[in-house]
Amino acid sequence: MIDTELLKKQIEEQGQAVRKLKTSGGDPAQVNEQVAILLSLKDKLRIASGGSKEEPAKKSSGRSIALKVPKGTKDYTDKEMSLRSKIFNTIVGIFEKHGAVTIDTPVFELKEILTGKYGEDSKLIYDLKDQGGEECSLRYDLTVPFARHVAMNGISNIKRYHIAKVYRRDQPAMTKGRMREFYQCDYDIAGSYDPMIPDAECVRVAVEVLTRLDVGSFVIKLNHRKILDAIFEVSGVPEDKIRSISSAVDKLDKLPWSDVRLEMTQEKGLDGVVADKIGEYVQLKGGEELLQKLQELPELMASKKAQEGVADMSLFFKYARIYGILDRVSFDMSLARGLDYYTGIIYEAVLVEENVRPAQAQPTAKQAKDNELIDESQIRVGSIAAGGRYDELVGMFSAAKRARDKKTDVPCVGISFGIERIFSIIWSRMEESVIKANRTAVYVMSMRDGLLEERMRVATELWDNGIATEFAYKVKPRQQSQYDACDNNVIPWAVIIGKDEIEQGMVRIKNMVQKVEGEKMGVLVKRADMVTELKKRLEETPELI
Amino acid sequence: MIDTELLKKQIEEQGQAVRKLKTSGGDPAQVNEQVAILLSLKDKLRIASGGSKEEPAKKSSGRSIALKVPKGTKDYTDKEMSLRSKIFNTIVGIFEKHGAVTIDTPVFELKEILTGKYGEDSKLIYDLKDQGGEECSLRYDLTVPFARHVAMNGISNIKRYHIAKVYRRDQPAMTKGRMREFYQCDYDIAGSYDPMIPDAECVRVAVEVLTRLDVGSFVIKLNHRKILDAIFEVSGVPEDKIRSISSAVDKLDKLPWSDVRLEMTQEKGLDGVVADKIGEYVQLKGGEELLQKLQELPELMASKKAQEGVADMSLFFKYARIYGILDRVSFDMSLARGLDYYTGIIYEAVLVEENVRPAQAQPTAKQAKDNELIDESQIRVGSIAAGGRYDELVGMFSAAKRARDKKTDVPCVGISFGIERIFSIIWSRMEESVIKANRTAVYVMSMRDGLLEERMRVATELWDNGIATEFAYKVKPRQQSQYDACDNNVIPWAVIIGKDEIEQGMVRIKNMVQKVEGEKMGVLVKRADMVTELKKRLEETPELI
Repeated sequence: MIDTELLKKQIEEQGQAVRKLKTSGGDPAQVNEQVAILLSLKDKLRIASGGSKEEPAKKSSGRSIALKVPKGTKDYTDKEMSLRSKIFNTIVGIFEKHGAVTIDTPVFELKEILTGKYGEDSKLIYDLKDQGGEECSLRYDLTVPFARHVAMNGISNIKRYHIAKVYRRDQPAMTKGRMREFYQCDYDIAGSYDPMIPDAECVRVAVEVLTRLDVGSFVIKLNHRKILDAIFEVSGVPEDKIRSISSAVDKLDKLPWSDVRLEMTQEKGLDGVVADKIGEYVQLKGGEELLQKLQELPELMASKKAQEGVADMSLFFKYARIYGILDRVSFDMSLARGLDYYTGIIYEAVLVEENVRPAQAQPTAKQAKDNELIDESQIRVGSIAAGGRYDELVGMFSAAKRARDKKTDVPCVGISFGIERIFSIIWSRMEESVIKANRTAVYVMSMRDGLLEERMRVATELWDNGIATEFAYKVKPRQQSQYDACDNNVIPWAVIIGKDEIEQGMVRIKNMVQKVEGEKMGVLVKRADMVTELKKRLEETPELI
Repeated sequence: MIDTELLKKQIEEQGQAVRKLKTSGGDPAQVNEQVAILLSLKDKLRIASGGSKEEPAKKSSGRSIALKVPKGTKDYTDKEMSLRSKIFNTIVGIFEKHGAVTIDTPVFELKEILTGKYGEDSKLIYDLKDQGGEECSLRYDLTVPFARHVAMNGISNIKRYHIAKVYRRDQPAMTKGRMREFYQCDYDIAGSYDPMIPDAECVRVAVEVLTRLDVGSFVIKLNHRKILDAIFEVSGVPEDKIRSISSAVDKLDKLPWSDVRLEMTQEKGLDGVVADKIGEYVQLKGGEELLQKLQELPELMASKKAQEGVADMSLFFKYARIYGILDRVSFDMSLARGLDYYTGIIYEAVLVEENVRPAQAQPTAKQAKDNELIDESQIRVGSIAAGGRYDELVGMFSAAKRARDKKTDVPCVGISFGIERIFSIIWSRMEESVIKANRTAVYVMSMRDGLLEERMRVATELWDNGIATEFAYKVKPRQQSQYDACDNNVIPWAVIIGKDEIEQGMVRIKNMVQKVEGEKMGVLVKRADMVTELKKRLEETPELI
């Protein structure tokens, strides 16, 4: 059953990868991981060739399993989770300010729900093993499960957000941070409404989120699927080439027109005259004034689609002005977006400065690692959010329902944030040692004598008063180890007890992060006032937690 | 490849299930789901028998796919998610008050990481399809991934919580609410500390969580694995019978001793004399005073294990007294707990009243459905949290690391909350129509004339001031539909605008949930004061959001 030739080839490739990583001074954890993969491949080959799994010298060490996570996945540390949860809370706060609710769907769906929704990328869908029963696959995004949920429950309107993990069996490129398990963060408005009102609100939500998270200067590019379709129509692009030509147009953000034109004519066999005509249109970009310009192009405006698209965009600009986001948007005729299911406005938020990190001669090890974590695969370089209107996806599911139900379209518009990329940008700016992973406000310590029970009593009183408190889980902890615990966990306040203080009914409160003149030993307060005194300090310095 | 006989049998069983569900007046959504399964089985049979998937009459309706979620999984609605998130926030608040951090691990692990950790239940592990590459499985719980994380990263101590979904390919019993995807909520303390200090804190955390969530009267049963082992040892239970006898003992919470004794002697072939000796011990229960009683049993105390266990429990009671949780615990020698990996104290929180729901003649449809959602499979009837000390699990992974690392034990103690059950208890008490799924505070409405742009202007000002606001996405919404939106979404405040008011620079603020005498049309305030006036009202009535 096992193809030893394939294994040998894999071992050779993995060996090369490890050598490359080692010589390029790769992150030790990453080197270890890759070495583990190599060793496990070698194990497999040994067994396949009739040998024993364990090498003779290692027999005593028991079963040899690779202690690692699956390729393309990672554990998130406490500090990463702390930052992630702050970012999520900020985003959710904005979603909820706009009235959104959240729903949750299973991590896996029936395979046929996902079938036919992702075109070429369907090969990246993770399937569950058929262990008897239904065929299931891990969700590939959050949009298709949302559309399935809306259709299945006959929902006519909902404004929902969903932050959850999705799965893509892509070739993981750890060096680029292309992950197989990663978060998506979607905000969608479903329902039959008057034109462009929810659409403009989605862009307003994007502006609020990206501004509040302070990711750097950004602009939101806008276009309209119908205008794009009209351009291809009036330029004379054959029906069967529209898709590939559209994807060529989408490259105009990185390539000059001459290169894109070459791709159209040489690679894709488009007539040069047609390409030139497209070129005239798709190089147009600007603000509201571009609408005027489009309306003065009689050939384009002869198309009904163009008229509809321009009317939509005209409304959009009116609403965007009221929403105060005109300075953040750019009407860009080259924006095409890949997904087939868009039917109206499309948008994409991009960072204006390509290099968002502070310039420096040598990136630190953490920063070098951070760079690798930016997920280039999920979203284009510089792109941090994207979305648009998709009016027919829910209908695809409703239509698929058995004859007893009639087809019902539920028009949708939404935006998806490139949350992994946003996280990487914010993470790379932070000094890891000062990130506080816990929320502990007070550490109860004794100077000598242990005093475990008294420390427990103090902690209980603080817990009862809602104050986040820790103490050393030792009967007689060393003084230094207690100080270290405060430093390592960035705990701002200590309550210090000693035999003398207990006898006098006193405790000391000490600020552990900001040295206060003359308070090296902390401030002596009555034990009875301890909670009040601490609460006062915590209120005065909320930034320390 | 397809076993048509098996399919026929499945169709027959499914047909019976559907009929039973229909005659018992089952929930329509559930009936539909089960019918869909039946139809898809019939489709399969038709194809297997050489027929076409589509029935002739339905050919025009396109592909026929079952619009449903996989067996044993469910979507969570906005109201369910709203309650769920409140419960999670309460729990996380308590975990963080005790200094815990959170980490996240992938939804799937390498298959070999899970192998050999769950005994018999390993057959319930979901595997991913082998699409080339590593063999992976969905996580079965959060404890094994935690131990893997600690071992893999050489962590010597961490106090972490993790709330996430786990997967068990159990035969789903929707009527009992046994799910294949469900949440677990774990709090664990890993590290070498002095005895029983973190153990007592875990129980204190459980008491805080269950008290704060107000799930009903509960008691936390305690026992110690070493005392239990000593009992079996001194009673003379043969080594190979300890496991099955232990599981019989565990049934003493539901069965009388005579039944349990019968199971031991008749089913499991234990000597009657041995069973009687066990019976003397395991029927003991009580508070701290039980320690004294145990110490007066010379035969038991001759066992070193018993001495160690009793010493531990003695410390536990000392600390539990300081933590103020003595009235919540019950030392119960019959508590055995299933999992093999416990090495010290074990505990289980149980509801004291079996029937925690208010008595009533006829449960509502929602309540009947809620009852079904209680997951009896995950946790025993009445049990709402459980855990204990497991000092060797991390070591199992460290030992498995290659020879370059030496085996390192990281002792652990933890507690897992039966969060699905807790959710069901709280959910069943609530009136669904008053659950507010969104956080919207204000709905901007016009009495007539539409006034879309003005409504947008007001909403923008409120958003800019951090006030959660919605309005109708229509150019000219009907008055009634705007009122309905407030009712349906439990939105407490309306800002009402009209042409007259706009001209006068005024708006009306109306309380939509509490009728105020003489304010049927709301209170007229200056447009310039709108934000201040709303903020004042929101501060005064935080319970409305």
